[in-house]
Amino acid sequence: MRRELFDIPEGVIYLDGNSLGAPPKHVAERMQEVVKHQWGTRLIRSWSEGWWEAPQRIGDRVGRLVGAAPGQVVVGDSTSVNVFKALMGAVKGTGRTEIVCDESTFPTDGYIAESVASLTGLEIRAAHPSSLDLSEDTAVVLLNQVDYRTGALHDMKALTEQAHAVGAQVIWDLCHSAGVLPIELDALGVDFAIGCTYKFLNGGPGSPAFIYVPHARQATFENPLSGWNGHREPFGMKPSYEPDPGIVRARVGTPDILSMLALDAALDVWDDVDLAELRQRGLALTALFREHVEKLTNLEVITPEQRGNQISVRCQEARAVMDELIARGVIGDHRPPDILRFGFAPLYVTDEDAVRAAEVLADITR
Amino acid sequence: MRRELFDIPEGVIYLDGNSLGAPPKHVAERMQEVVKHQWGTRLIRSWSEGWWEAPQRIGDRVGRLVGAAPGQVVVGDSTSVNVFKALMGAVKGTGRTEIVCDESTFPTDGYIAESVASLTGLEIRAAHPSSLDLSEDTAVVLLNQVDYRTGALHDMKALTEQAHAVGAQVIWDLCHSAGVLPIELDALGVDFAIGCTYKFLNGGPGSPAFIYVPHARQATFENPLSGWNGHREPFGMKPSYEPDPGIVRARVGTPDILSMLALDAALDVWDDVDLAELRQRGLALTALFREHVEKLTNLEVITPEQRGNQISVRCQEARAVMDELIARGVIGDHRPPDILRFGFAPLYVTDEDAVRAAEVLADITR
Repeated sequence: MRRELFDIPEGVIYLDGNSLGAPPKHVAERMQEVVKHQWGTRLIRSWSEGWWEAPQRIGDRVGRLVGAAPGQVVVGDSTSVNVFKALMGAVKGTGRTEIVCDESTFPTDGYIAESVASLTGLEIRAAHPSSLDLSEDTAVVLLNQVDYRTGALHDMKALTEQAHAVGAQVIWDLCHSAGVLPIELDALGVDFAIGCTYKFLNGGPGSPAFIYVPHARQATFENPLSGWNGHREPFGMKPSYEPDPGIVRARVGTPDILSMLALDAALDVWDDVDLAELRQRGLALTALFREHVEKLTNLEVITPEQRGNQISVRCQEARAVMDELIARGVIGDHRPPDILRFGFAPLYVTDEDAVRAAEVLADITR
Repeated sequence: MRRELFDIPEGVIYLDGNSLGAPPKHVAERMQEVVKHQWGTRLIRSWSEGWWEAPQRIGDRVGRLVGAAPGQVVVGDSTSVNVFKALMGAVKGTGRTEIVCDESTFPTDGYIAESVASLTGLEIRAAHPSSLDLSEDTAVVLLNQVDYRTGALHDMKALTEQAHAVGAQVIWDLCHSAGVLPIELDALGVDFAIGCTYKFLNGGPGSPAFIYVPHARQATFENPLSGWNGHREPFGMKPSYEPDPGIVRARVGTPDILSMLALDAALDVWDDVDLAELRQRGLALTALFREHVEKLTNLEVITPEQRGNQISVRCQEARAVMDELIARGVIGDHRPPDILRFGFAPLYVTDEDAVRAAEVLADITR
């Protein structure tokens, strides 16, 4: 859809945008401007010329892609740190006893949930999204919209309603769905969401993550990482922490401006993307690849029909197969023990890429 | 000492390196290489070509500047987040009842300490480093080596001994002292240290902070932010968190590579800096400026003799005076209500800068 805006090396079919998105071409030039002019020439003055508000401003840009009206998303910190903020914020004062965590989650969510359980005295229970078994003991459910291993897409509307039906809250991890399909956080009444920006949003390696705290939750949201950037009056240098009344309270320390402004530049390519059209292209690309791969023997496609922009394939000697694919210019990745993952970023992956990748896979595994 | 390595704009006397260090000239070019080659050409492969280990590798580079042998420092996250890790790690399992926090600290340390106190049930007590009044109730003391407002240098050796004498631990915040003077974390038996890298180390706006956990503390250090990067086997995708045995357990989420590799480049200028010589230059520069400013009426130098690389001056209408200084090309900063701060980074500030800055200040306040 926008391949001309990206730098993809000659001879490479890049199917790992679900792990690290490719750089939009203009990001390198923007970084020169940031380093030489904003940092080098303006020096400290840049903090009052746009840097300080960048987490909210860029948060609103991400918000548009996940169905959040302005003033409810900030970027900053890593996904893991934002999971911690959201979970600690969610369990505070509920009087309930359990945290339910998607058993197939990318591990960091579960690891952070373990720490939160230990700090707060709640129990943690792992469950599959298809059988959550929630109750009035459940304080919060932490779910992934798209499963990182299988690419399965979970039903955000139904699962959010299921949580709310027993008075539980829900935190959605959007790492593998932001930039994949239309998301309606506001419309579905989601309690919290977090996600990364370096996969389908192409923000750059380790670019800042985001957190969504809806307007209705902001006044009671207690950020356990009460750093000075979330203070009501950060430059007042007050002795006690008083949180900003709005989304700014989800900020912590000084934002990593170089990474953040690379993300800002990368988001330019999203300005006129129609997310419904993007979704159709993603479905078409993954269907095309799947159709070819399903003809192959010795391989099993494990991605269900309800899916994100990813096709996962189980095969023997998966690591060796992926090494060979990469040696032949088809870059996906491998998750132990036996999964090959292929991500299809519709902004820069073409039908020809999908077909050619399947051909190379066929040749290697024949 | 190294002015030729820095980009300082024509006509500017930059005395705010205690807030945001100036960029070494080669950082812009390095960022091009990182964005175009490492991200753009190598794509996901760069994670196994140096990115993954960057937090430890760069941590060791910072370690050399703060007296820490390799394997005890990692870079990543913000200072506030690292204060949280260190404080939570320090109070865990001590059975003691109070956290003592430098009452004149940069506020974020105190704000985070409030959160830690609330999460753990400990009391927090603010005290001046000159009268800490520690006891066997004290779990940990959180101190700044150099005070951000006054520039006062505290005695790390004496205060560390004072804490240890009652069995308390000490966390040193090195934000305003790293890159200012020789620091001996290992030799003094410091329990934890944290600091930022964007002031005298010139890492760039919001560049990753660092945390020091000495070898002797690593096996028992529990990182409350138990993200996947700190796992013993991060790519094993194990269901439960098991920390890495060493300093890697202080890592959390995916590191912000662009900011981190800008810091890496910036640290090149430190490779052959003699910290004792640097300290002498810093003392000479601040003495020269102080000598000129002490002759002026309507101003009061509040920086004591034991100091970092900063001279702070109390004056009426401090904000308006600083605005006028900046308009005339002398960039320092203002801290409410009535403090002007002038930082002297010996790597790029010269004697002529110090004298000229004092002359402009005299002209404005005469």
